[in-house]
Amino acid sequence: MPPKPDTATDNINTRHERRMQRKKAMMDEKIEQAQRKTGVLLVHTGNGKGKSSSAFGMVMRAMGHGMKVGVVQFIKGAMSTGEEIFLRRFPDEVEFHAMGEGYTWVTQNRERDMEKAAVAWEQAKRFLTDPTIGLVVLDELNIALKYHYLDLQMVIDDLDGRPEMQHVAVTGRGALPELIAIADTVTEMQVIKHAFKEGIVAQAGVEW
Amino acid sequence: MPPKPDTATDNINTRHERRMQRKKAMMDEKIEQAQRKTGVLLVHTGNGKGKSSSAFGMVMRAMGHGMKVGVVQFIKGAMSTGEEIFLRRFPDEVEFHAMGEGYTWVTQNRERDMEKAAVAWEQAKRFLTDPTIGLVVLDELNIALKYHYLDLQMVIDDLDGRPEMQHVAVTGRGALPELIAIADTVTEMQVIKHAFKEGIVAQAGVEW
Repeated sequence: MPPKPDTATDNINTRHERRMQRKKAMMDEKIEQAQRKTGVLLVHTGNGKGKSSSAFGMVMRAMGHGMKVGVVQFIKGAMSTGEEIFLRRFPDEVEFHAMGEGYTWVTQNRERDMEKAAVAWEQAKRFLTDPTIGLVVLDELNIALKYHYLDLQMVIDDLDGRPEMQHVAVTGRGALPELIAIADTVTEMQVIKHAFKEGIVAQAGVEW
Repeated sequence: MPPKPDTATDNINTRHERRMQRKKAMMDEKIEQAQRKTGVLLVHTGNGKGKSSSAFGMVMRAMGHGMKVGVVQFIKGAMSTGEEIFLRRFPDEVEFHAMGEGYTWVTQNRERDMEKAAVAWEQAKRFLTDPTIGLVVLDELNIALKYHYLDLQMVIDDLDGRPEMQHVAVTGRGALPELIAIADTVTEMQVIKHAFKEGIVAQAGVEW
């Protein structure tokens, strides 16, 4: 005789409950172990979508918790992006510096790119020495490092020397192994599918 | 005789310029081909950090472009998160619905979770039938689908039937293949490193 529907449902619910109890015990133990509070260095890399937008999601979280935020956009910046338009509404909460000049494959001038990167790093350094800033976003810094627009050791030293409780999010494809080595959290965004390849243009609110 | 320093620098710059010109030509061709404007369905999945924060970064972009946004948080919600506190400052721009009750491994009650998920989907459906909403975020929907808290076919039908220009971002680990199949852009966030494993506690502005 097959089990009555009620019994089958009960079994599903009991199994679910046991599984969730094991999961809770595991999570409780992990939380018990992880108690150190400190500023973290996050790196978002890979070819997939979501590297910059994830950093800007963190900006929203930080603002929700009343933290001050500093943003420097490397490489990008010729086009006004949605996040820039939005964040400029909060000059007391967010300092925003866009390097300008757009992507290097549009400008095609290495020396000018290097000068712009150096100016942008000066701005970044100002944030990285200011303990009142809780989160610093260095958007597309990985690109600037990959093309050697900035000295890697200088960047690492400035990141290491920042205020203890300050969080930093670095984005861009091709993160250098030296940066990954000193980071606390590293995520690789992998493309499974991209609308662009299906003939859909980059659109406001999605890509910029 | 070794080349003079100036010549070496010139070579680097010339090589760089040629490479960037090729890249520009490639990008121009891609942009030429991708001209279709339509609402896209994005899925952020994988075990790495950045799935929800990336969706909230898109919210910021959309708001920057003057779009109205609807957010439904599935599963999460017992704890007030930074993004929720922040977004509630803009009731005219963002409608925010958090399902409440927190993670299932805390509540350990499948039937209650299913009821909450059904109520949250009613809210989602209201957004998915409203053409004035430019972006809908369905945060952690993948978890609700993975545990069969919601009927998959109903979810797919409602996503398919949404207004043509509306973008949707779905987040959460373990995206079902059926959802990936109908998505335009899918990113898998992969863990390379996580601060939590190094004994650093989840912190405001970073994880919530």
